Amino acid sequence: MTAVDFEAFVERLANVAGEAVMPFFRTSIGVENKAGRGFDPVTAADHAGEAAMRQLIKVTFPNHGVIGEEFGSEGDGAEYVWVLDPIDGTRGFITGLPTWGTLIGLLKSGAPVYGMMSQPFTKERFFGDGGSARYRGPLGDRRLRTRPCATIEQAIMSATSPRIFTGDDLTAFERLEAVTRTTRYGGDCYAYCMLAAGQIDLVVETDLKPYDIVALIPIIEGAGGVVTDWNGGPASNGGRVIAAGDKRVHAAAMEILNKA
Amino acid sequence: MTAVDFEAFVERLANVAGEAVMPFFRTSIGVENKAGRGFDPVTAADHAGEAAMRQLIKVTFPNHGVIGEEFGSEGDGAEYVWVLDPIDGTRGFITGLPTWGTLIGLLKSGAPVYGMMSQPFTKERFFGDGGSARYRGPLGDRRLRTRPCATIEQAIMSATSPRIFTGDDLTAFERLEAVTRTTRYGGDCYAYCMLAAGQIDLVVETDLKPYDIVALIPIIEGAGGVVTDWNGGPASNGGRVIAAGDKRVHAAAMEILNKA
Repeated sequence: MTAVDFEAFVERLANVAGEAVMPFFRTSIGVENKAGRGFDPVTAADHAGEAAMRQLIKVTFPNHGVIGEEFGSEGDGAEYVWVLDPIDGTRGFITGLPTWGTLIGLLKSGAPVYGMMSQPFTKERFFGDGGSARYRGPLGDRRLRTRPCATIEQAIMSATSPRIFTGDDLTAFERLEAVTRTTRYGGDCYAYCMLAAGQIDLVVETDLKPYDIVALIPIIEGAGGVVTDWNGGPASNGGRVIAAGDKRVHAAAMEILNKA
Repeated sequence: MTAVDFEAFVERLANVAGEAVMPFFRTSIGVENKAGRGFDPVTAADHAGEAAMRQLIKVTFPNHGVIGEEFGSEGDGAEYVWVLDPIDGTRGFITGLPTWGTLIGLLKSGAPVYGMMSQPFTKERFFGDGGSARYRGPLGDRRLRTRPCATIEQAIMSATSPRIFTGDDLTAFERLEAVTRTTRYGGDCYAYCMLAAGQIDLVVETDLKPYDIVALIPIIEGAGGVVTDWNGGPASNGGRVIAAGDKRVHAAAMEILNKA
């Protein structure tokens, strides 16, 4: 496949996911409860979105593998593996907020090489290949660039919720929150894209699955940012993730998180 | 003024505010620090948006009063007083998230009689007069109706941030958070509109100013919801506010918040 074919294909994936998902946005239909305890909602939209993307991948690239939130893994030994989350930010989705998105990532030999976040309500797409990243939406067609931020004290931080942290991780997060300029909650995948767009300096989260982060890595890195786990290792396995627009903020945040 | 003229006038107010504010959205220009300490950002957008609305009100209704976040009060003894917040959710605005909005409220003899929330990036408007409420935007032209929710345990709650609460209020909020189904942070004025749209059951906040809530009251009440302070008194003075889509949830939440 050529580079042009490939980008057109990812756009088609985002299109079919958006068409499957949007009929369920801001309606009360299709909400069920995935987990036995707690609140881990999954909607018919999630299923429909992932099924549509898997179908298109299977027809177009039968040798590619797929990892998805809803239907598990297929062909994970393949050279190319797609990593899909039809609705990242399910809680944002069910409350009607436009901060969720469809995440489409591509691994080559296990490394993230392309990623897209598509927000079908605002009609925005953020995409990158690790070397560069772009935005297309109501504000036009723009290159995505993180902004410089010299010190952790100047950094605007984001996390989906302070309630995702427990035990030592909560203590570490609160240590960080005490020194950063401010914290904004509730951004979901949109927050990582706003980091790539130079609006947010730092995103710190935990308990991520690979499909929550793989697609975002080439966007963040393509925009000039850094994203790793809390120990500086690859973020692509999920878990505890730290993303920063400026490597000085990344280093400072990692030091504060890991202080004994 | 006739009813039709009046609605057209509020649309014009929202238009001029949106035109003044949008050039500053997702740029790094114009951010200054209003408060000497802490982080209370105000942008050139805030100033430009409020100035544009005040100008239009002054020319059209010279006898009306105006209360605004940026330029204070004028003519607050007037029968009709406009209550304006050009950018409610400044933190959402500066981080690039589309959860902020322009709030335009109208008091008649001190009581909120009309309100609009305009989100110029998503091109959505939520408006109401206490008797009914409507939405216009990418999802069409819809009546706004809160949804029924029989018990507090089923309620989806929203608050801008758990960090807005301190002392006894924090304890009370955490008591509530422990019994509700889930809590979504970071909604700003958008969360109250999603309550009116039947996507959220409960919004609990504190430290609101009148211009943060007056415009939202006729929308919430027009959609069938209840909004008061934590003691059941009028919400229009701001302070500690509780909004619910179902009066059973409102009563249960108030009891839990006020439990000694």
